Amino acid sequence: MRAAPRVVVLAGGVGGGRFVLGMREALRRRDAAVNTEQLTVVVNTGDDLWLSGVRLQPDVDSVMYALAGVNDVNRGWGRQGESERVASELREWGATWPWFTLGDLDLGAHLARTGWLRDGLTVTEVVARLASRWALGASLLPMTDAEVDTVVEVDTGTGRREMHFQEWWTRYRATLRPLAFRNPGMESAGLPSGVAEAIAAADVVVVAPSNPVVSIGPILAVPGMREAIASSHAAVVGVSPIIGGKVVRGMGDVCLDAIGVATSAAAVAEHYRSRRHGGVLDCWILAEEDAHLASAVESAGIAAVVHPLWMTDVTATAAIAEVALRSAGR
Amino acid sequence: MRAAPRVVVLAGGVGGGRFVLGMREALRRRDAAVNTEQLTVVVNTGDDLWLSGVRLQPDVDSVMYALAGVNDVNRGWGRQGESERVASELREWGATWPWFTLGDLDLGAHLARTGWLRDGLTVTEVVARLASRWALGASLLPMTDAEVDTVVEVDTGTGRREMHFQEWWTRYRATLRPLAFRNPGMESAGLPSGVAEAIAAADVVVVAPSNPVVSIGPILAVPGMREAIASSHAAVVGVSPIIGGKVVRGMGDVCLDAIGVATSAAAVAEHYRSRRHGGVLDCWILAEEDAHLASAVESAGIAAVVHPLWMTDVTATAAIAEVALRSAGR
Repeated sequence: MRAAPRVVVLAGGVGGGRFVLGMREALRRRDAAVNTEQLTVVVNTGDDLWLSGVRLQPDVDSVMYALAGVNDVNRGWGRQGESERVASELREWGATWPWFTLGDLDLGAHLARTGWLRDGLTVTEVVARLASRWALGASLLPMTDAEVDTVVEVDTGTGRREMHFQEWWTRYRATLRPLAFRNPGMESAGLPSGVAEAIAAADVVVVAPSNPVVSIGPILAVPGMREAIASSHAAVVGVSPIIGGKVVRGMGDVCLDAIGVATSAAAVAEHYRSRRHGGVLDCWILAEEDAHLASAVESAGIAAVVHPLWMTDVTATAAIAEVALRSAGR
Repeated sequence: MRAAPRVVVLAGGVGGGRFVLGMREALRRRDAAVNTEQLTVVVNTGDDLWLSGVRLQPDVDSVMYALAGVNDVNRGWGRQGESERVASELREWGATWPWFTLGDLDLGAHLARTGWLRDGLTVTEVVARLASRWALGASLLPMTDAEVDTVVEVDTGTGRREMHFQEWWTRYRATLRPLAFRNPGMESAGLPSGVAEAIAAADVVVVAPSNPVVSIGPILAVPGMREAIASSHAAVVGVSPIIGGKVVRGMGDVCLDAIGVATSAAAVAEHYRSRRHGGVLDCWILAEEDAHLASAVESAGIAAVVHPLWMTDVTATAAIAEVALRSAGR
């Protein structure tokens, strides 16, 4: 067994959290004493939002809960043992959160976060403080300290309208046709402390099988992120979020369609592009169901590796992570 | 039994809520069909505060819960059947609300309110929307739409420090000696829609037995409030919050001491002053324990009435309210 390399994972929420859990397991199998510096997760904050003056970070929470082992595995998101006393009160008040499921335990995190942000802490400091509650075995970093909440322009049938990504995602279940995704303020955002350093020190950078448009997209759009990846000596490996021409969970196909990318493991790899051609990928791991697309990926200048990609449990996910490490030559 | 007059009560939180319940009962005994326009409660908002980006209105909530019959009678404050799941999470996070008890049901109100305020509703509109959940049998109005949160300057033993009233009250239990109370922004605050109209249309204005300094004080300090009372044709009756030279609940004596007023039923009446001498009172109801102070009150140009003032239950409180109405000639 080889020694545990230094790994940076770019990740969205639930799928990202699941993958990161497998990566932590893969690293521990190589070295039981692997420490948090060896695994850094750069988390999408593009789906963060303000609701009623409270700051939510759905992807940060999903990854954190997964690593802490307090996530609700059956439901697939949120905390175990969650309740909704506050949310049911809000419904009684006829208040404006009905489309966002608000757990009581979740709300504790939201309020702690909001208080710290209003005290003047950076997003990075807030995420670190939240993450310090548990021994996560990984470092969590937001993709940026700036607020760059994703806005979706939708076709309502009778016209165009803009709304927050979360409203579109959770209220409309992505049924309104998206025309564009924007992150206002992104042009003046920057990498927060630690991200460039982690990528520079990494042996492997992994693009998790998260939504390429609204999870990985914002991460790569932070000014300085692509440059940090391009100049790193790390190998960059992506894991396909598409299996058999379908998104595994969520509504990624609708998002891909909006930016003119087919829901295909090869098309997503080509969208990320080869690092040799100014993109981010050295290698792309495809599902067995998509083995026939390997040659297309290779033609795009990206090494293709075929492996089962169903993250059914930690063991299966650790095997995917291990393949990512080996594909990176580690 | 005489017909139910139009009544405006100036009220603070828990004590104010208890008194208002008695007033509603007294009016109902006169006319079972008494409607909400007949009883208007102008509630102190000087103890409102922002915590973690969430807006709290302790006195508004106390009065509203009391009128709705959902207040926790045993504990003396907050909602019946309250729980603290969110608060216990906040403690786990080491977040900054430990000194403010935060119930889950309460938090529903706080979040609904905060959302509406951030949507641009006025405080008056928010209070009306909250109050519309139940048939309160009374109209609730905030004393102002402006934010005039009370600041306390305290003597820490080693120097002077300013803090929000609620921090002083709930975190320090008023043990730090107060040197002054201020309501920053009060000079540019004004009466909200409805208050001057209610006072002008009232037959009786009652100053509830609330804290004269931090509950009634801010109400009377809103520019326009004293003028509205002075020019009203209503009789103004105050109910003493001091019984037998002691405050019934809370830490009103410390507050009175800070503004140089003795904890005495007569001293508080003199502090409010006779309307004939530029103050607010026509009549003052003293507890039997303070009957010997009646002549001092009369000497200050205020009619004195002696009556049992323990608000032990709704019947006892309704009797006090009935005496207030009769003292006003109604």
